Amino acid sequence: MTQSKRFFSDNTASVCPEILQAIHEANRDLAVAYGDDPWTKRLDEALGAFFGTQVRAFALATGTAANSLALATLAPPYGAIYCHPEAHIACDECGAPGFFSGGAQLELIEGAHGKLTAEALAARLEAHSVSVHSVQPAVVSISQATELGTAYRPGEVAAICQAAHARGLSVHMDGARFANAVTYLGCHPGDVTWRAGLDVLSFGATKNGALGAEAVVFFNRDRVRDFELRRKRAGHLLSKSRFVSAQLLAYVESGVWRRNAERANALARGLGEAAGTRLLHPVEANEVFVDLGAAGKASLRAAGFEFYDWGSPASGAARLVASWDQDERHAQALRAALAAL
Amino acid sequence: MTQSKRFFSDNTASVCPEILQAIHEANRDLAVAYGDDPWTKRLDEALGAFFGTQVRAFALATGTAANSLALATLAPPYGAIYCHPEAHIACDECGAPGFFSGGAQLELIEGAHGKLTAEALAARLEAHSVSVHSVQPAVVSISQATELGTAYRPGEVAAICQAAHARGLSVHMDGARFANAVTYLGCHPGDVTWRAGLDVLSFGATKNGALGAEAVVFFNRDRVRDFELRRKRAGHLLSKSRFVSAQLLAYVESGVWRRNAERANALARGLGEAAGTRLLHPVEANEVFVDLGAAGKASLRAAGFEFYDWGSPASGAARLVASWDQDERHAQALRAALAAL
Amino acid sequence: MTQSKRFFSDNTASVCPEILQAIHEANRDLAVAYGDDPWTKRLDEALGAFFGTQVRAFALATGTAANSLALATLAPPYGAIYCHPEAHIACDECGAPGFFSGGAQLELIEGAHGKLTAEALAARLEAHSVSVHSVQPAVVSISQATELGTAYRPGEVAAICQAAHARGLSVHMDGARFANAVTYLGCHPGDVTWRAGLDVLSFGATKNGALGAEAVVFFNRDRVRDFELRRKRAGHLLSKSRFVSAQLLAYVESGVWRRNAERANALARGLGEAAGTRLLHPVEANEVFVDLGAAGKASLRAAGFEFYDWGSPASGAARLVASWDQDERHAQALRAALAAL
Amino acid sequence: MTQSKRFFSDNTASVCPEILQAIHEANRDLAVAYGDDPWTKRLDEALGAFFGTQVRAFALATGTAANSLALATLAPPYGAIYCHPEAHIACDECGAPGFFSGGAQLELIEGAHGKLTAEALAARLEAHSVSVHSVQPAVVSISQATELGTAYRPGEVAAICQAAHARGLSVHMDGARFANAVTYLGCHPGDVTWRAGLDVLSFGATKNGALGAEAVVFFNRDRVRDFELRRKRAGHLLSKSRFVSAQLLAYVESGVWRRNAERANALARGLGEAAGTRLLHPVEANEVFVDLGAAGKASLRAAGFEFYDWGSPASGAARLVASWDQDERHAQALRAALAAL
Repeated sequence: MTQSKRFFSDNTASVCPEILQAIHEANRDLAVAYGDDPWTKRLDEALGAFFGTQVRAFALATGTAANSLALATLAPPYGAIYCHPEAHIACDECGAPGFFSGGAQLELIEGAHGKLTAEALAARLEAHSVSVHSVQPAVVSISQATELGTAYRPGEVAAICQAAHARGLSVHMDGARFANAVTYLGCHPGDVTWRAGLDVLSFGATKNGALGAEAVVFFNRDRVRDFELRRKRAGHLLSKSRFVSAQLLAYVESGVWRRNAERANALARGLGEAAGTRLLHPVEANEVFVDLGAAGKASLRAAGFEFYDWGSPASGAARLVASWDQDERHAQALRAALAAL
Repeated sequence: MTQSKRFFSDNTASVCPEILQAIHEANRDLAVAYGDDPWTKRLDEALGAFFGTQVRAFALATGTAANSLALATLAPPYGAIYCHPEAHIACDECGAPGFFSGGAQLELIEGAHGKLTAEALAARLEAHSVSVHSVQPAVVSISQATELGTAYRPGEVAAICQAAHARGLSVHMDGARFANAVTYLGCHPGDVTWRAGLDVLSFGATKNGALGAEAVVFFNRDRVRDFELRRKRAGHLLSKSRFVSAQLLAYVESGVWRRNAERANALARGLGEAAGTRLLHPVEANEVFVDLGAAGKASLRAAGFEFYDWGSPASGAARLVASWDQDERHAQALRAALAAL
Repeated sequence: MTQSKRFFSDNTASVCPEILQAIHEANRDLAVAYGDDPWTKRLDEALGAFFGTQVRAFALATGTAANSLALATLAPPYGAIYCHPEAHIACDECGAPGFFSGGAQLELIEGAHGKLTAEALAARLEAHSVSVHSVQPAVVSISQATELGTAYRPGEVAAICQAAHARGLSVHMDGARFANAVTYLGCHPGDVTWRAGLDVLSFGATKNGALGAEAVVFFNRDRVRDFELRRKRAGHLLSKSRFVSAQLLAYVESGVWRRNAERANALARGLGEAAGTRLLHPVEANEVFVDLGAAGKASLRAAGFEFYDWGSPASGAARLVASWDQDERHAQALRAALAAL
Repeated sequence: MTQSKRFFSDNTASVCPEILQAIHEANRDLAVAYGDDPWTKRLDEALGAFFGTQVRAFALATGTAANSLALATLAPPYGAIYCHPEAHIACDECGAPGFFSGGAQLELIEGAHGKLTAEALAARLEAHSVSVHSVQPAVVSISQATELGTAYRPGEVAAICQAAHARGLSVHMDGARFANAVTYLGCHPGDVTWRAGLDVLSFGATKNGALGAEAVVFFNRDRVRDFELRRKRAGHLLSKSRFVSAQLLAYVESGVWRRNAERANALARGLGEAAGTRLLHPVEANEVFVDLGAAGKASLRAAGFEFYDWGSPASGAARLVASWDQDERHAQALRAALAAL
């Protein structure tokens, strides 16, 4: 079977064998629906072990659902949610945070390489004159890895959490590529989350080998509040929840989270090295942002490589994403093509 | 492995082999995400063939999402949605129609055996004095099979559609157990849908052998409008959509929809016959509603049978649901136990 | 000046001189906007004195805003609000409770003469199987006077509050015609509100002589929560709040609330006596519901009397509303015409 | 009577005699409620005459309601609304646009002196990659006068409308200080609205002498759609609508709109001249933005002048607003004090 030379997105990847196997194993018998099954019941424990602390964890099928439900639990309908202009919640979820929260407003804070800084956050919060006329600062949301393929260091997360907590805001992390970031950082999953003060994480597995499995992980269990009711009324409580929970269990317990992320990161690192000075952002996960120029883009596409323009098609910028299951030869070919540009 | 004697719900059932196989087959390579894959692209055609007409079909992971997104597409935020008091949308979706629509109001219309009648609907619409002060009649939603295990005949659906359309309302069908109803009726899937005038169907596969797969099927393609945007912002556009679409394709193309429904229906019919005069509603799908009395319920439970009370636990009413994969011996045992009461 | 023979609604009435005078007096100088003015600052104290207890009170321009903001403060977006099928919030506010709350669901409970009973409420709450799948019982809303012109006795309100509080629900009263009910009952305003356990009242003045002035009065001040933020983001915080607050102060402090209600009630009572056996509900406020028959309605209209059909125009039912400023001769003429039918 | 030296806001101003007189005149008799009265029925005609074209106009009590209802009529719940970061809808309405629209997202575009430019708008729209993943560009909202006291020229409005319409967006104008801008520009009200292509205007009267009266004016009558239903369910349809409509009629027909704006503008112009180089923005309406320095602010306040800091209290920036009824001596005193700094 020939595999296409797609570097569009890690969402194009297949399901890894361990996770498919877990789905099979969860299928042996009847199981109580809506999460009252053995797999779902083990989620808190398994994710707690993964993160090294007690957590409350909820299984979901999509990342937009995870982000939006987390944010709606943290922000009132008249709340303000602070994030980077490139954040997935700001650009790629069709207004989901506003829908789920009942109207909360995004407040964008610029920052280099897709990262929000504690300083910029503190300055913005300082400048926000809070009264009954304004939206009420409620949540900071950061992405790990960021939408530009960079990773927050534990100290950066801690500084953001401190700035946010000092003013009564919660901190949410969109971890659609959490495994890639942690693998790159070489740290413990707890180091960039609860140990740094994080309240809630959208913990993604789908892009890294699952079929469709994300978890909202509450480190601050006081914030769980009405999450389960919000999930249900949004149609995100799966009747056969066991099949999502089983994916998550396999993901954290078998080590595929790290193995898959390592492979994707390594391929991306190789592409980044080949791109050299064309690189727009450090490669700290499995995404590579490059300025190829119009000719460079055309040349790669002529060679069969598929990828997205980044920003306006008129610019030379492009995004190359390596997936856990990317064909080795295609990656090598792309590496060579980049080096040859 | 011993299987539990669970007659709680068809949501407890496992995934049937054909559907699991389809998931495997869809996993062979990278595929473009968010529905731009070969399986999803075939949905309209495959469901069109199944229903015998042109349709627009959208894959979803849950029935609540299917119902609510369909209703939100049909009803404005100040709309009225007419349904039976036992409707899933009224009782079991935690207010999802109000959430997705931005405030639409449910208007309940009583009817025997879980069915809304065209006469009662017409009378209610006649009595509703529409002005700027009232919610605006927008949609009628009926369930097939109903929440009390009965099935609308084609003529009944047609009469409801006629009464609704005559006043400018759309008609939606919650078909979480659509296969069970059609199998019972012995009719073509088109007979109780578009041939009867239906606008939109929530077509369920999850309860009848899928892992998690529902489709919203628009027979009236003028009504599709902004469905895709609403789906996305509700977090219901799956990144790896192919795995839901592949389930739906296998479901309608392999014939498992009918085979699974026939088996569940037959088991339920047997239970209904054994229940005799204890039966509260005709058995026209895979659900059996019986008045067991407190003693009867206790006796069955003592024998290891698991099922839900129906209504107040103080009453003697119970619901017994047969699943496509129910253990034959358990069903026979329950049948015998019912007969012995 | 000739006055029209309108018995449509007390919303057609004019503003009484004392209230217009209060608006003039509030206009003497600049005053800080958005409620930080001397009149608004006195609201809590003045309404507290009126009700005989400490309150938090908020001025608003419309009754729909008062009801909906009160309900949205009391009910979560997945909450259930229990009310009579004839309630203004269910029939005449275009779905406002669903809008303001973000999706809360109305649950209707029948009762004679527009009244919900504690027994029916308790039975409904008992029957509601609460789980993550259902809306969550949150609020009971009753109207005083009811939409059928009857008045809850203090003991009836107390029983409803007791039944609600026993299950953790709040109680709201739509008091658009509160003055008419209290005047009829001959009790203290506190007797049918906080002394009976009421949490929140929409206290209307507009129908009874104000220009546009309603107050949401929280007897249970723990429930105020985010009311002010919800009011602001709904566009209901008036920049020149003093002019609404001044109306409310004049309304409760000058005694016009009682004088105006007494006059309207007396006129209605007279109409009710003339209607005799045609009366459909007891006359306990300023509304009269009569079965005039088609001929009766036509005959009154031919004589120049204007009023609304009640329910279907095909029925003989009609609603006659007496306003505080109704022309005495018109009321006598209508009385005579009713007696002559 | 001594008047306070308040330069906080034109919302602190009183009601001008002509408008109070109009309220009196509207109070002579019963009038049909909810807008079916002679004053409201004349609104379209009177505002049409004022603007010199056919319009549909709706009376409201607050500017936030006018803006939000207009925007919610123009933008779908997944829409994007483009505005300046200083826009009232972004900073001072507690998230109202998100609430009324059901989740629409604000997109902020910087521009000098509070103005959005057609070039910046076009560039942003060009850069926005529209797909099912993103919010859908729907409306541009500009303020006239802007929140920084400047006025858009007819050509600037026309260029913005052209850029918006070219991409299918509507254009809304927040005209809370519309009279001040038009008076400054010396143009016809139509010149900066429909003649420049504007679709919808929030036409404010409250800040300029009314008690509480704003109109949403649709120049593009195709956009009216469901405005009336949205207004009702938001609690913004006043039962005694005649009293708001009568204010609007008096405002445009008696010429007070211009007389009041001219006086406020003249006072502000005088303050601006006195401020000299401390001026932060041109004075093109009735607001004056000055950098007074900490000492300057303290000195003015010590002299009894009241005004708001602009931005952080730590900065030296302040906003001085002149109202139509500002005491001449206070304005002269402030002028002298500014000149003396």
